[in-house]
Amino acid sequence: KNRVLVTGGAGFVGSHLCDYLVARGDHVICLDNFFTGSKDNIAHLLDKENFELIRHDVVEPILLEVDQIYHLACPASPVHYKYNPIKTIKTSFIGTMNMLGLAKRCRARFLISSTSEVYGDPLQHPQTEEYWGNVNPIGERSCYDEGKRAAECLTMDYHREHGQEVRIVRIFNTYGPRMALDDGRVVSNFVSQALKGEPLTLFGDGKQTRSFQYVSDLIEGMVRVMDNDEHIGPFNIGNPGEFTMIELAEMVKKVVNPNAEFMWVENTADDPSRRRPNITKAKTLLGWEPKIPLQEGLLRMVDDFKKRLHIEE
Amino acid sequence: KNRVLVTGGAGFVGSHLCDYLVARGDHVICLDNFFTGSKDNIAHLLDKENFELIRHDVVEPILLEVDQIYHLACPASPVHYKYNPIKTIKTSFIGTMNMLGLAKRCRARFLISSTSEVYGDPLQHPQTEEYWGNVNPIGERSCYDEGKRAAECLTMDYHREHGQEVRIVRIFNTYGPRMALDDGRVVSNFVSQALKGEPLTLFGDGKQTRSFQYVSDLIEGMVRVMDNDEHIGPFNIGNPGEFTMIELAEMVKKVVNPNAEFMWVENTADDPSRRRPNITKAKTLLGWEPKIPLQEGLLRMVDDFKKRLHIEE
Ligand SMILES: NC(=O)c1ccc[n+]([C@@H]2O[C@H](COP(=O)([O-])OP(=O)(O)OC[C@H]3O[C@@H](n4cnc5c(N)ncnc54)[C@H](O)[C@@H]3O)[C@@H](O)[C@H]2O)c1
Ligand SMILES: NC(=O)c1ccc[n+]([C@@H]2O[C@H](COP(=O)([O-])OP(=O)(O)OC[C@H]3O[C@@H](n4cnc5c(N)ncnc54)[C@H](O)[C@@H]3O)[C@@H](O)[C@H]2O)c1
Ligand SMILES: O=c1ccn([C@@H]2O[C@H](COP(=O)(O)OP(=O)(O)O)[C@@H](O)[C@H]2O)c(=O)[nH]1
Ligand SMILES: O=c1ccn([C@@H]2O[C@H](COP(=O)(O)OP(=O)(O)O)[C@@H](O)[C@H]2O)c(=O)[nH]1
Ligand SMILES: O=c1ccn([C@@H]2O[C@H](COP(=O)(O)OP(=O)(O)O)[C@@H](O)[C@H]2O)c(=O)[nH]1
Ligand SMILES: O=c1ccn([C@@H]2O[C@H](COP(=O)(O)OP(=O)(O)O)[C@@H](O)[C@H]2O)c(=O)[nH]1
Repeated sequence: KNRVLVTGGAGFVGSHLCDYLVARGDHVICLDNFFTGSKDNIAHLLDKENFELIRHDVVEPILLEVDQIYHLACPASPVHYKYNPIKTIKTSFIGTMNMLGLAKRCRARFLISSTSEVYGDPLQHPQTEEYWGNVNPIGERSCYDEGKRAAECLTMDYHREHGQEVRIVRIFNTYGPRMALDDGRVVSNFVSQALKGEPLTLFGDGKQTRSFQYVSDLIEGMVRVMDNDEHIGPFNIGNPGEFTMIELAEMVKKVVNPNAEFMWVENTADDPSRRRPNITKAKTLLGWEPKIPLQEGLLRMVDDFKKRLHIEE
Repeated sequence: KNRVLVTGGAGFVGSHLCDYLVARGDHVICLDNFFTGSKDNIAHLLDKENFELIRHDVVEPILLEVDQIYHLACPASPVHYKYNPIKTIKTSFIGTMNMLGLAKRCRARFLISSTSEVYGDPLQHPQTEEYWGNVNPIGERSCYDEGKRAAECLTMDYHREHGQEVRIVRIFNTYGPRMALDDGRVVSNFVSQALKGEPLTLFGDGKQTRSFQYVSDLIEGMVRVMDNDEHIGPFNIGNPGEFTMIELAEMVKKVVNPNAEFMWVENTADDPSRRRPNITKAKTLLGWEPKIPLQEGLLRMVDDFKKRLHIEE
C-alpha cells in the first residue's frame, strides 16, 4: 500500500489531490495548519479508512512514516501570502526543508508544488522550464516568488547532495470548486461577483493575461509527475490557453450571469503582465495535457460557489 | 558606546571590518563558526579590550545584546559554497532569520552583506539596484544566489512588517590581504600562482568580465551604509572598473611576476559573463566611491600572500 503525505491537503488543490489518491486506494495522510485551508474541503473524507488528518504547521519538524510526499503547504493567493510575508517565506523555506528532511529519513519520493511565479513578470513568452525568470527579489510579492525559488533550489540540492528522489511541478493559475471565497484570486472573485450580482472587479487595464487550468487537469498532471520513475522536472503544469482579464470577465459574464457589469480598480504592485506555459516537456515526456476548456471549467464551479454563497436558484 | 555584532567576522571581509570598528572604538563582538574563516585573521585583535570572539553557527539561535549587526556569515567563494550547498542555503536563510530575530529583540540596526550574484548572469549592463537579475533557480550556484535573494527578501519583509531598521549592500568582487588561499577565487588564485611560479589558470575563454574592488573601499562603503540614518538600500558597493580575466592575468603578471605563464582550463557551469556595478546610488546618496585602483590593490596583497605562502624574497 502506498502511504502518501499531502501537506496543505485541506486547501483548494490539496483536497482535490486527497480525493484522487483516496479513490485509487492509497493510504493518505493530510497535513494542514488550516491557515487558508478548511475542514469543509475534506469533511467527506474523514470517515474513509484510508484517510487521516493531522493538524500541524510545516515550519515545525514532524516524524511520520510515508512513501510519497506531495508538499503543497503554502498560502497561494496574493491576498493570503501578503498577509504575513515573513510567515509565508518561512513556510516556503523551512517547511520545504522539514519535508525534505522527512523524505530523506523515510527514503520517500518528494514532490514540491512550485509555481509559475518563479518566472515573475516573464520576458520570455510562453515560458519554458529553462527560462530563469524575471523576479523582483525585494518587492511585495517576493516572499512568495523568492520563497518558492529557494524551495526549488533546496529540493534540487537535496537531490544532488543526497541522491534523493524529488519531483518539481510549476503550477500555472488553477481554478475550480473549493477555491476559498475570500482569497481574492481573479476567477473566484469574478464567479462570486457574478453570482451575487456585483460588478466584476478588473484590476489595472485588464489587458494582462493569464492561462487558467481546471483543477482536475492539474491533479492528473501532478500524479503523473510523481508516479513516473524517470523525470525529475521541473515540469510546467498549466493550460496554454491565454486570456486577458477582460476576456475572462466576458466569459464569466456569458457563463454565469449575462447581466454582470464591470468595474475598474487600481492594480497591485509588480503584477505580471503576461503568463502562459509552454507544456511541451510534460506532453512529450509524460504524455500529459489539460482537457477541460475554460468555459466548461467555469460552468463546473457554479454549483459549488452557489452552495457556499447560499444563493438559491 | 556602540555595541556591534559582526557575523562571519573571522573571514576575509569580516576581519577587515572588525579592524576598522575596533580602531574607531566600537565594542565589537565577532561571531564565526570558522567554516571558511580563520583565527589568524583576527589573532591581532584578541587582546584588545573592545573585541570579543564567539564560536557559534548562525543557523542556531543566540541571545546577545547589541546596537548594530553586520551580518556577513556565509561562505562566499564558489569552491566553498558548492562544498555543501544545503548548508550554504540554510546558512543564508536561517542564519539571516536568526540575526533578524536578534535585531528585532534588541532594536538593533541590521545590515546584510548581499552580493552582485543576485543579478546572476546579468542582461542589463552595468547593473543598477533596480535590475531584477537573471538567476538560474536550480543550478549549481543557486544555493548561494537564491539564498542571498531570499535573505534580502526576508530582510525587507522584517522592515515592512515590523518597521525594523535594515540596510542592504550588494557587494561586487572584492580582493585584498587575508583572502583564503584555498578559496579558488580568481584574484587569490592568480596572485598565489604568480608568486609560486605556477601558470595562471584562465577559465573558459577568459573574456568574461568582473569588476574588482579593494577591501578597504568595501569596508568604507559598508560603514557608510550602516551609519547613515536615511537610506536602506540596496546599495551596490563595488568598483566600476571592468576587466576581462585575461586583462586581470596580464595585470598580475606585470605587478607580481613578469615571468608568469597562462594556462587555459574548462569553465564552471552558469558562470556570469559580465559584471559591473552602477554605483550612482551610493555616490549620490552617501558620497561614497572606491579609491584604490586595481594595480595598487594587487601590490598591497603581495606581502600578505608571500608571508602566508612562506615565500622568501
Ligand atoms: N492554485 C493555484 O493557482 C496555484 C498556482 C501555483 C502554485 N500553487 C501551489 O499549490 C499549492 C496549493 O495551493 P492552493 O491553491 O491549494 O492554495 P490553498 O491556500 O487553498 O492551500 C494551501 C494549504 O496549505 C495550508 N498551509 C499554509 N501554510 C501552512 C503551514 N505553515 N503548515 C501547514 N499547512 C499550511 C493551508 O491551510 C491550505 O490548506 C501551494 O503550494 C501553491 O503555491 C497553486
Ligand atoms: N569577497 C567578495 O568578493 C564578496 C562578494 C559579494 C559578497 N560577499 C559577502 O561578504 C560576506 C563575507 O565574505 P568573505 O569574502 O569575507 O568570505 P569568507 O568566507 O572569508 O567569510 C565568511 C565568514 O563567515 C563564516 N561563516 C560561514 N558560515 C557560517 C555559519 N553558518 N555560522 C557562522 N559563521 C559562518 C566563515 O567561517 C567566514 O569566517 C559574505 O556574506 C559574502 O556573501 C563577499
Ligand atoms: O523525519 C524527519 C526528519 C527531519 N525533519 C526536519 O527536517 C530538517 C532537515 O533535515 P535534514 O536531516 O536534512 O537536516 P539536518 O537535521 O541534518 O539539519 C530538520 O530541521 C529536521 O528537523 C523532520 O521534520 N522530520
Ligand atoms: O478581482 C480581481 C483579482 C485579480 N485580478 C487580476 O487577475 C490577475 C490574476 O490574479 P490572481 O490573484 O488570480 O493570480 P496571480 O496574480 O497570482 O496570477 C492579476 O493580473 C490581477 O491583477 C483582477 O483583475 N481582478
Ligand atoms: O535574540 C534572538 C531573538 C530571536 N532569535 C531567533 O530568530 C528567529 C526569528 O525570530 P522572530 O522573533 O522574528 O520570529 P519567531 O521567533 O516569532 O518565529 C527565531 O528562530 C529565533 O530563534 C535569535 O536567535 N536571537
Ligand atoms: O583560477 C581561476 C578562478 C576563477 N576564474 C574566473 O574568474 C571569474 C571570477 O571568479 P570568482 O570565483 O573569483 O568569483 P565569482 O564567479 O563569484 O564572481 C569567473 O569568471 C571564473 O570563471 C578564472 O579564470 N581562474
